[in-house]
Amino acid sequence: MAGGRHGLVIVNTGDGKGKTTAALGLLLRAWGHDQRVVMLQFIKSMGRSAGEHHAAAKLGIEITPLGDGFTWLSKDVERTAQLAMDAWEQAKPLILGGEYDVVVLDELTYPLQYFWVPVEEVIATLAARPAHVHVVITGRGAPEALIEAADLVTEMRLIKHPYRDQGITAQKGVDF
Amino acid sequence: MAGGRHGLVIVNTGDGKGKTTAALGLLLRAWGHDQRVVMLQFIKSMGRSAGEHHAAAKLGIEITPLGDGFTWLSKDVERTAQLAMDAWEQAKPLILGGEYDVVVLDELTYPLQYFWVPVEEVIATLAARPAHVHVVITGRGAPEALIEAADLVTEMRLIKHPYRDQGITAQKGVDF
Repeated sequence: MAGGRHGLVIVNTGDGKGKTTAALGLLLRAWGHDQRVVMLQFIKSMGRSAGEHHAAAKLGIEITPLGDGFTWLSKDVERTAQLAMDAWEQAKPLILGGEYDVVVLDELTYPLQYFWVPVEEVIATLAARPAHVHVVITGRGAPEALIEAADLVTEMRLIKHPYRDQGITAQKGVDF
Repeated sequence: MAGGRHGLVIVNTGDGKGKTTAALGLLLRAWGHDQRVVMLQFIKSMGRSAGEHHAAAKLGIEITPLGDGFTWLSKDVERTAQLAMDAWEQAKPLILGGEYDVVVLDELTYPLQYFWVPVEEVIATLAARPAHVHVVITGRGAPEALIEAADLVTEMRLIKHPYRDQGITAQKGVDF
């Protein structure tokens, strides 16, 4: 593979901030090179008016929220689990089709942690993708098997946090 | 400050990837909210055709490379040090002027590490900025004094790296 184009499996994990944000930056960079990019959001729901959605709409980048906003807090875990699996079924053809250069699976680690989506199936799908496709997976607590299967893994570690340490509320533009 | 709008000093540091990329994502998000954003790059030189520059040009986001591409490798350290200080002098009015909502000082940590730009002056400038201005500083080895002065500090830790571990070369869209 050396020298040739080789799609990477990139995992941004850890308790710190910047996991989704770095994935957005990567999308922007790839988009700047006229690559075809897409982000599927496994937790974020349609309702929240996030800066990345406004930006994506302006750019013509596809960012699709597929979650219901809930995880372990869900009032109807079965529905949430089903939504996660439905989202994964939507993700698979995008990973396998080769139409996109970069596919971001934002917060996929949570459905993996709760066994709503089987990690083995995700890994098998990643292994079966066309060679040029980069896949970026974000979220806390990436399963060990996923880390094994990934090419590039970064842990975002929280060193200092204003909302916890100083009681500052979430900031438009920075957090959403 | 609680509840009100409060500009943050954000530091993305550590040896892992995603420091600049997360700053780009933050710019994109803020831009999506129609905030005014700018990125000054302290190391990156004008020459390199990076994805973020293409993207920024398409978006009308200002990303200004001010470095000469060198740090400790510089053949003319005095010139590099002077360039860093010149870059910092360009950054100051952007931080202090209040015209921008987000000012990214990309790879500023390197000029700080080499004492080309005095950290005390950076901290004093951050303290003097208008309350709404977010400042994001990226780069390895953020000085302790800067971490003390920051609101939000994330360390990007390398868990697994394809270029080191597998000999894969840097990828367009992902790395530049």
